[in-house]
Amino acid sequence: MTQVMPLIRNGVNIDQMFGTLDAIKANPSLATFKWRATNQWLGGSHNRTTIKSFYGGGGEDTSREPTFTLDAGEPNILLGHDEGPNPAEFLLHALAACLMTSVVYVASARKVVLEEVSSTVEGDMDVQGALGLSDEVRNGFTAIRVKFNIKAQASPEKIQEVLERAYARSAVFDSINGGVPVTVSLAA
Amino acid sequence: MTQVMPLIRNGVNIDQMFGTLDAIKANPSLATFKWRATNQWLGGSHNRTTIKSFYGGGGEDTSREPTFTLDAGEPNILLGHDEGPNPAEFLLHALAACLMTSVVYVASARKVVLEEVSSTVEGDMDVQGALGLSDEVRNGFTAIRVKFNIKAQASPEKIQEVLERAYARSAVFDSINGGVPVTVSLAA
Repeated sequence: MTQVMPLIRNGVNIDQMFGTLDAIKANPSLATFKWRATNQWLGGSHNRTTIKSFYGGGGEDTSREPTFTLDAGEPNILLGHDEGPNPAEFLLHALAACLMTSVVYVASARKVVLEEVSSTVEGDMDVQGALGLSDEVRNGFTAIRVKFNIKAQASPEKIQEVLERAYARSAVFDSINGGVPVTVSLAA
Repeated sequence: MTQVMPLIRNGVNIDQMFGTLDAIKANPSLATFKWRATNQWLGGSHNRTTIKSFYGGGGEDTSREPTFTLDAGEPNILLGHDEGPNPAEFLLHALAACLMTSVVYVASARKVVLEEVSSTVEGDMDVQGALGLSDEVRNGFTAIRVKFNIKAQASPEKIQEVLERAYARSAVFDSINGGVPVTVSLAA
């Protein structure tokens, strides 16, 4: 008997990828996800988020073993002690990470073998808004720029095509670029 | 000689807070910040972000000592191996962390002593968008809900007021709720 090895490209199991796509095509409700985070104040601008459970694929996830913890802080100039990246920096990381995964998945589906991929992200903010000193400037970022370096076994045109398709499909790119309605309330 | 101790409330140095606000009022250009992140592909959906430098307070920061690293991954159902929270979860963490810091800073400025504060965040996503299976659903979150638990030495009305002021000024809440123009390109 010959054992069939799964096709892996760029570290992505291509057989699993197309199997997942087929399963969702057959049953679109599998695509409904709920992502979650729980955050705890630790004093001053230091707080910690715990991440584990999510809903997806038709039910509550039971596969994830680790519980992730993330510490956020602020630098001294914003009254903290660098206990972690600040929340604005975490937003940029979320964006960079999602775009990276999108590049890898799109390249893998399109048979592009990646060699090295990295990105740098920079976002502009006038903190007069968040500090309550001005109603003329917004509280959040005014612009975010992402620059990718991609080395791949593909033409420059193909690499550009992969990048464009990646951000056209990135969940976090769309969430930030398009905005998401957020409700904030006290727990009952 | 009597030594004057700084006033600390909720772990926040109130003297530093009002000193910072006065300095920015006198010179608004101090409020211009640039936040940054650098992300590296590690194979499949595993990637790592490095965070350290930022511009703010009139120049490049020289005070921050640690370099932060953050690993992002995906759960098995989305073709990964749980090397870290996924990018969508990092976005929720960024939001929770920013709202928490805003609650703490607003409470501190308004003389509200906090005892315990936590929040839970949940966001809805139909991954048919990000997986390229449908143009009818968006790629990103369709809605995000944040619920706060706040124990403080204050009336329920005062606590509600602090929470409302906090999200009215949160940089990440505004970035996500209002959206931010994001540009993605290949480095020159």
